[in-house]
Amino acid sequence: MSVLVVGTTALDSIKTPYSENPRLLGGSASHAAVAASFFSPVSIVGVVGSDFPEDYISLYKKHGIDLEGLERKEGQTFFWEGEYEVNMNNRQTLETVLGVIEGWLPAIPTGLQEKQYILLANCEPKLQRHILSQTKNSRFVIADTMDLWLNIARDELLALLKEIDCLVLNDSEARQLTEEDNVVVALKQIHDLGPKYVIVKKGEHGAILSTPKGLFIAPAFPLTKLTDPTGAGDSFVGGLIGYLAAAGGDIEDNFRKAIIHGSVTASFCCEGFGLNATTEATRDAIDARVAELEALVRF
Amino acid sequence: MSVLVVGTTALDSIKTPYSENPRLLGGSASHAAVAASFFSPVSIVGVVGSDFPEDYISLYKKHGIDLEGLERKEGQTFFWEGEYEVNMNNRQTLETVLGVIEGWLPAIPTGLQEKQYILLANCEPKLQRHILSQTKNSRFVIADTMDLWLNIARDELLALLKEIDCLVLNDSEARQLTEEDNVVVALKQIHDLGPKYVIVKKGEHGAILSTPKGLFIAPAFPLTKLTDPTGAGDSFVGGLIGYLAAAGGDIEDNFRKAIIHGSVTASFCCEGFGLNATTEATRDAIDARVAELEALVRF
Repeated sequence: MSVLVVGTTALDSIKTPYSENPRLLGGSASHAAVAASFFSPVSIVGVVGSDFPEDYISLYKKHGIDLEGLERKEGQTFFWEGEYEVNMNNRQTLETVLGVIEGWLPAIPTGLQEKQYILLANCEPKLQRHILSQTKNSRFVIADTMDLWLNIARDELLALLKEIDCLVLNDSEARQLTEEDNVVVALKQIHDLGPKYVIVKKGEHGAILSTPKGLFIAPAFPLTKLTDPTGAGDSFVGGLIGYLAAAGGDIEDNFRKAIIHGSVTASFCCEGFGLNATTEATRDAIDARVAELEALVRF
Repeated sequence: MSVLVVGTTALDSIKTPYSENPRLLGGSASHAAVAASFFSPVSIVGVVGSDFPEDYISLYKKHGIDLEGLERKEGQTFFWEGEYEVNMNNRQTLETVLGVIEGWLPAIPTGLQEKQYILLANCEPKLQRHILSQTKNSRFVIADTMDLWLNIARDELLALLKEIDCLVLNDSEARQLTEEDNVVVALKQIHDLGPKYVIVKKGEHGAILSTPKGLFIAPAFPLTKLTDPTGAGDSFVGGLIGYLAAAGGDIEDNFRKAIIHGSVTASFCCEGFGLNATTEATRDAIDARVAELEALVRF
């Protein structure tokens, strides 16, 4: 089965104490689509401006990503500039230019409206709902979000939660959404807001999945060098839905392995700036790390 | 095999936003010895003052803990008063009275000098080394430590590291000891300081064990309610060495299961103030949680 990925397609300038990396390919949909492409065919829905480099179109194509839903508009591509501190846990935004994404509410091409696996990668909840309202017969809809939307679009996000199968967010966002400090309790409360499945991401500490059958505590692949964590969360959820779409069958039966494959795909993302390391990964390299991780957690 | 546990035996007054709990049984050796007692016979080496309640002696005895090495001196028992914030991640020390532990350098009773499994629970590295120097024919020596000793007794701690088999510390302490931000890299550097085995504790995120054969990523048992984390780290290492001593055989072969049993024993500790919940646990209840945890991480 193929996956529909909707979200931002962006140019990211990323500074660290050691290097500057201007105008990398970024955005939630770019990271998620490339990650998903290791497992399933992927169609992307996004918008880029007239400054979007042709090389990045080639990168999408290298991963077999269907670009029918990638709109090109006059103007500037969504741009984000951020700077990481030495430990990579703290970053600050230096500049954001919305450009062509501002107010963008696309019409989904007819051929993409009946995709069964839909990833609403991190973007404005209003946009996520607008896209979702144009789809039909979906089997599994997963949405990612971020603290910004909890702060400025909470009602729209709460409405979205009633329309999706799975929500992904990080631990501090789960606490913010529920005002509950204990993550296990917060997970239960998020189910009450709508989604049957909830995943809390904990970065280097892994993730927790909550389903009607209970919890799954997932490890992260231990990295000795973190080059750039930008897009790791998007890669995680992209790899996850790509794996689920490829596996077919019962969602619950495949969810644990899907999370592990998403987590490992995200580990590659962290090893290079932007998509540099992800795009050099292979399905074999991902499977080798999954096997390695399996051995690291067995007891 | 039986375990020798050395460390502090204390009275802890613990405040939270919801309650005050004066003069609980505490100290690293108390928590560790009770935790170890679920798996193996335990002898404790410590010192208490004339104010030490007889009820706490009874509690040690209820767990079959051999008290030959528990010295009683005139004066005040080591006392700690601390206050936790709502989220239990932050605490501050309100008062510390060293009392009879100040300058205490015991002579280990002859009958305890040849114990094969030795836990140097968290206390001054000088004291840990003094105890260790009196033991003979040990098979496995594990030491716990804390940030205080990294700050005020670093040289003594570095000397200790050359004399033990295993060091336990938390992630921020591992970073402080090595000045390396990446925990996986820090683990390798700590091996170079002496210990063959190193465990980094990450609280609710579990622990990482590093051995000559590689890493083990251990989950923590997910709790919905955290009443008082005081002593959780001591319970972890106590349960761990108790399990290893009971298992016998090759250390490396049993280490992963030992960590899981230590982690689960610590989960009970967190559910009550002081030792209130730990002392109500049973080996069956621990084994049931281990089985539950096994099911939560399988993929």
